[in-house]
Amino acid sequence: MRTTVGIVGAGPAGLLLARLLHRAGIDAVVLESRDRAYVEQRQRAGVLEQGTVDVLRAAGAGERMDREGLRHDGVELRWAGRRHRIDLAGLTGGRSVMVYAQTEVCKDLIALQLAEGGPLLFEARALAVEDADTERPRVRFRHRGAEEVLECDYVVGCDGFRGVTRRAVPAALAQVFERTYPFGWLGVLADAPPAHDELVYAGHDRGFALASMRSPSVSRLYLQVPAGTDAAAWSDDALWAELERRFETADGAVPARGPITQKSVTPMRSWVHEPMRYGRLHLAGDAAHIVPPTGAKGLNLAVGDVVTFARALVHRRETGSDALLTSYSPTCLRRVWQAERFSADLTALLHRAPDATPFELRLQRARRERIASCRAAAADLAEGYTGFPF
Amino acid sequence: MRTTVGIVGAGPAGLLLARLLHRAGIDAVVLESRDRAYVEQRQRAGVLEQGTVDVLRAAGAGERMDREGLRHDGVELRWAGRRHRIDLAGLTGGRSVMVYAQTEVCKDLIALQLAEGGPLLFEARALAVEDADTERPRVRFRHRGAEEVLECDYVVGCDGFRGVTRRAVPAALAQVFERTYPFGWLGVLADAPPAHDELVYAGHDRGFALASMRSPSVSRLYLQVPAGTDAAAWSDDALWAELERRFETADGAVPARGPITQKSVTPMRSWVHEPMRYGRLHLAGDAAHIVPPTGAKGLNLAVGDVVTFARALVHRRETGSDALLTSYSPTCLRRVWQAERFSADLTALLHRAPDATPFELRLQRARRERIASCRAAAADLAEGYTGFPF
Repeated sequence: MRTTVGIVGAGPAGLLLARLLHRAGIDAVVLESRDRAYVEQRQRAGVLEQGTVDVLRAAGAGERMDREGLRHDGVELRWAGRRHRIDLAGLTGGRSVMVYAQTEVCKDLIALQLAEGGPLLFEARALAVEDADTERPRVRFRHRGAEEVLECDYVVGCDGFRGVTRRAVPAALAQVFERTYPFGWLGVLADAPPAHDELVYAGHDRGFALASMRSPSVSRLYLQVPAGTDAAAWSDDALWAELERRFETADGAVPARGPITQKSVTPMRSWVHEPMRYGRLHLAGDAAHIVPPTGAKGLNLAVGDVVTFARALVHRRETGSDALLTSYSPTCLRRVWQAERFSADLTALLHRAPDATPFELRLQRARRERIASCRAAAADLAEGYTGFPF
Repeated sequence: MRTTVGIVGAGPAGLLLARLLHRAGIDAVVLESRDRAYVEQRQRAGVLEQGTVDVLRAAGAGERMDREGLRHDGVELRWAGRRHRIDLAGLTGGRSVMVYAQTEVCKDLIALQLAEGGPLLFEARALAVEDADTERPRVRFRHRGAEEVLECDYVVGCDGFRGVTRRAVPAALAQVFERTYPFGWLGVLADAPPAHDELVYAGHDRGFALASMRSPSVSRLYLQVPAGTDAAAWSDDALWAELERRFETADGAVPARGPITQKSVTPMRSWVHEPMRYGRLHLAGDAAHIVPPTGAKGLNLAVGDVVTFARALVHRRETGSDALLTSYSPTCLRRVWQAERFSADLTALLHRAPDATPFELRLQRARRERIASCRAAAADLAEGYTGFPF
């Protein structure tokens, strides 16, 4: 098989890239190790930055999002029993976020790709990227029991944290930056109306909690739990009781109970692989960086990466210049590190670290009071939340 | 001896409080363990917040400050060889800082107190505060070889980190919050014109440096050094060479060399004692809290404390209500913790922590880029730098 851009992975990064290239008239083939049903049901984040929304619309992939997604102009922070709203739109000159689950974005992009785009092979497991530092990189992969080769001009690794494409970068050239957290998020999906019409981030003494939503009748709720927690160890009753404690306020706006349809634990990690390019191999999304889920930057960072790559390739076709392709890694990394900073700071602001000193807990309280009382500090947060420019 | 307010310590907190009470027609006696010459020459910080400047003027103690002090409308941040100005006035609606040394503030206040105010006893060492939880607290002190007693309605402990007044707070009621840093500041005073007409904060890979000034012909320079460094171990030549390295930029604006007239090392510590009041004893300034010197909040916090106390006492005289006296500790602590947060964050932004992980160094770089590129982040910094409201 031969194509211009070999895309490894049909998560949101790979699927959106395929769509962007198709719209630009550039050939691409997408290889995905899982089957379609798996890709379309794995639960991930659900908050799209303003820039992500704009890109999906411009790519002709925003129709259902605009119909079913929930635009949010603010978020609520809750601590010490008090509620504090961050007016995202008012603080950023009109920017907002869209609550629309990553699974739905993937479903929309898969349908478009199968209807209009180039090849998208499910159950096609990439084995290795070869000759990445030449003008003819190849992806070896296994599909329907047979080993095959995809010959490309460019390879984009969108195969996530556990993917194989990154291994093609020689160890001597790569540097990894990492922080792990001693806690994770226990996430549940429940058939219950959301507690509030905006997302609620709670920084309780017992730990962080987040009340999000998938629709006006489906709640997405998270609880900070110790790292290594088994989701099955939490009964539904214990879960609701703990959620009610962490969201408690004077006016009683706590999540409504309802049947829990899914329950799982997400570990928390900050992780960056530098560089994001080696020869003709470009890493994108979770293959190059992981953020803790606080602030929902993961999907949005992946979108920024593939927009940067598509723009660079179109620039080359139009001008003959490799300049934007060559600067792919530093261009993406500037945005990645701003998101890493934002996610780490929002995590620190809201979570209860088990090893926090009394001094650090007082500093955390002072940071919260600062955001609640200083417009500049709130605006800095709102700009980060609605997204860094692509 | 008998007075309304017994003030222990003639640093800027004690001296300013005496001045404020004198202007309000309230009796006070100041006890200072050192002699006048010592108090008038000990080098401390030299940056007065807008609010401190306003208070000194209103207290009739701003005449020489306004003549000799240097008003600064901005500060310069320097890293990676680049210069970035924070426009303090532009970002805060016209607030600025005044470069005027703490020693000069003390000289001005001592002269005023001796000319117009109540008793100010030098070489009067406080030994203990007694009966703080009654309406007749007393300060036992030693003066000219004899032990004496100062009977008061209120005692204000302005006797610094090593003072004795704090010991009157029962251990069971007190809580201490602390962070120590593995580095300190080597400070030098030099007969050389300042490098720049505004303060320059340099975040170099080799460590932090600060170029400040006492006057247009006297530089005040600081270098981050490991904790426990002996100032005498640094030759003048080595010091200038290191300063030149840390301030290096493309346009060569490094400090001019000149005779070094003083050299000493300041340790770095964040420390808060809660509560700040016990009965009729009120702690103020370094007796209750220490900040690392980055951002020069120490003197300004002390001013906030004594303004709060004087206001509370005047309120009681005018209304008969103890409400402001009773809330002295929480009122002061809100401001104290904002300053602790600001000082800790500015320290982290600019210093090279010896144990920083590669991930943390990248986060530090992202924080610097954020301040250089985002008006809201710069405004948050500028508001903190010019000062939190009293």
